[in-house]
Amino acid sequence: STPLCSKLNTEWVTLNVGGKYFTTSRSTLMTKEPMSMLARMFAEGDNGFIMTPSNVDRNGAYLIDRSPTYFEPILNYLRNGQLIFDNNVNPEGILEEARFFGIESLVPQLESLIQSSQRSRDNVPLT
Amino acid sequence: STPLCSKLNTEWVTLNVGGKYFTTSRSTLMTKEPMSMLARMFAEGDNGFIMTPSNVDRNGAYLIDRSPTYFEPILNYLRNGQLIFDNNVNPEGILEEARFFGIESLVPQLESLIQSSQRSRDNVPLT
Amino acid sequence: STPLCSKLNTEWVTLNVGGKYFTTSRSTLMTKEPMSMLARMFAEGDNGFIMTPSNVDRNGAYLIDRSPTYFEPILNYLRNGQLIFDNNVNPEGILEEARFFGIESLVPQLESLIQSSQRSRDNVPLT
Amino acid sequence: STPLCSKLNTEWVTLNVGGKYFTTSRSTLMTKEPMSMLARMFAEGDNGFIMTPSNVDRNGAYLIDRSPTYFEPILNYLRNGQLIFDNNVNPEGILEEARFFGIESLVPQLESLIQSSQRSRDNVPLT
Amino acid sequence: STPLCSKLNTEWVTLNVGGKYFTTSRSTLMTKEPMSMLARMFAEGDNGFIMTPSNVDRNGAYLIDRSPTYFEPILNYLRNGQLIFDNNVNPEGILEEARFFGIESLVPQLESLIQSSQRSRDNVPLT
Repeated sequence: STPLCSKLNTEWVTLNVGGKYFTTSRSTLMTKEPMSMLARMFAEGDNGFIMTPSNVDRNGAYLIDRSPTYFEPILNYLRNGQLIFDNNVNPEGILEEARFFGIESLVPQLESLIQSSQRSRDNVPLT
Repeated sequence: STPLCSKLNTEWVTLNVGGKYFTTSRSTLMTKEPMSMLARMFAEGDNGFIMTPSNVDRNGAYLIDRSPTYFEPILNYLRNGQLIFDNNVNPEGILEEARFFGIESLVPQLESLIQSSQRSRDNVPLT
Repeated sequence: STPLCSKLNTEWVTLNVGGKYFTTSRSTLMTKEPMSMLARMFAEGDNGFIMTPSNVDRNGAYLIDRSPTYFEPILNYLRNGQLIFDNNVNPEGILEEARFFGIESLVPQLESLIQSSQRSRDNVPLT
Repeated sequence: STPLCSKLNTEWVTLNVGGKYFTTSRSTLMTKEPMSMLARMFAEGDNGFIMTPSNVDRNGAYLIDRSPTYFEPILNYLRNGQLIFDNNVNPEGILEEARFFGIESLVPQLESLIQSSQRSRDNVPLT
Repeated sequence: STPLCSKLNTEWVTLNVGGKYFTTSRSTLMTKEPMSMLARMFAEGDNGFIMTPSNVDRNGAYLIDRSPTYFEPILNYLRNGQLIFDNNVNPEGILEEARFFGIESLVPQLESLIQSSQRSRDNVPLT
């Protein structure tokens, strides 16, 4: 059980994304895509974190001015390396966030997914 | 990382839209459509903000008596310039809010979207 | 900007409908259908409000023992005069609440909507 | 307005069902199916309530270790006597809760509903 | 009513899964699959719980860095032994969580469910 414990003992952060709270670990935000803007937001610079305390709300959550709905699958991707989302979620919204946060490995995956779903819609026979 | 920091250091506001909280920056509300009613609600007048403290709830959030469900895609549009919403969301609800908040650039986009979806529904062959 | 200000300065109320909070103004609850039960709940009687403080929760919200899911389109209707709801929402649930709260103008609209959707389902050819 | 007042003055209870809060009245929980397990949980025994204070969370809500998603239509049924749920909700989840809470009048209604939806799915012609 | 009481008197735990709260009992987490990672997280070791207080948020909830959306059907399965989820929920997301938490009995069930839904999608005739 040591690996579990050590994983759980990492530093926890809470993000306030557009008004909704997400709790995760700094290692989740930084490990999968270390050069992404999201990772760099939580990297330690010479003078501590790049995100300064002025960007923290009264509950201690880091403020991010983006859509919570489309951030959720991005965060899950960083947790487990899989892009998974529910039927009713619009992949174009996820693509927009992947680009904003600089999660480069997700961008081509989402682009081809959007293209193929558009093609199958266009394929419907005319009545 | 300077542009990121300066962007994040803008003034944060929390809106209580019909009972649901949205956190964003004043610049998001004011930059994309500066003449909209929403932008003017957060513009500074001669005597400070136009929205006076009497319209703030006990958590310091600005009270707006509108639908939270349909405000969400409006706010995302102001954040990234894209109109994106999930399959199950009714675009007529978004149109209603775009009109109320005076987000003029969204109105024709939503109107043509609603018209084309009605046309495709009417096109279904009779049984 | 005077009409906006005066509108925003109306009295705010928070409703706890079945456990979910809705924030709105008393004028929204009372203007559209002044004779509805919902309007009368917030009308001032000879001895103040009809709803007495014993029906208020610890956050100061008025307690209403009904479905929050189906109350939402009702409240939006009172805000903007339009009946709009998402694809996955069951109109029979909204009808039940419209009847309970006495929003009479919504009842025939919902009834014909439910009937026509049942007719189109019955029209599907047998296999 | 007397019947409304007397109804609203009943005792309010808040339930924490699997982490989500539901606010309702004890009369809603006890009137429709007085012999159900749910009703008996809030019945007064010789020594006060059967649910003892140890089952109350720090907000004073009664703890119930069940699914909040599928409890919602059950509670609405107890409020207004109608089984109504949205398109995307799985009736098998509601049936499971109806059985757990002992809401006997809902069980056959849900069972026949599940059977007929399975039959219509099986009826799809083979390709 | 003794079995009900004794069941309700078990120890309650609140989990903060990715920012969303779930309330359940330790027995629910440990009974159905005692050897799962989830059960072992709440098992008592020689020196108390394996999950140490450093993994608890300011509300006393145990922090778990995973998707709340897909944890919900997992928790319901542990409560009642049934895998039930709504139409719009992606079973691949549930599978990912079942694997992470080590709920072995769910894995083959979800795998065959995903395979058969893919097969039926592939079976659609070409136009």
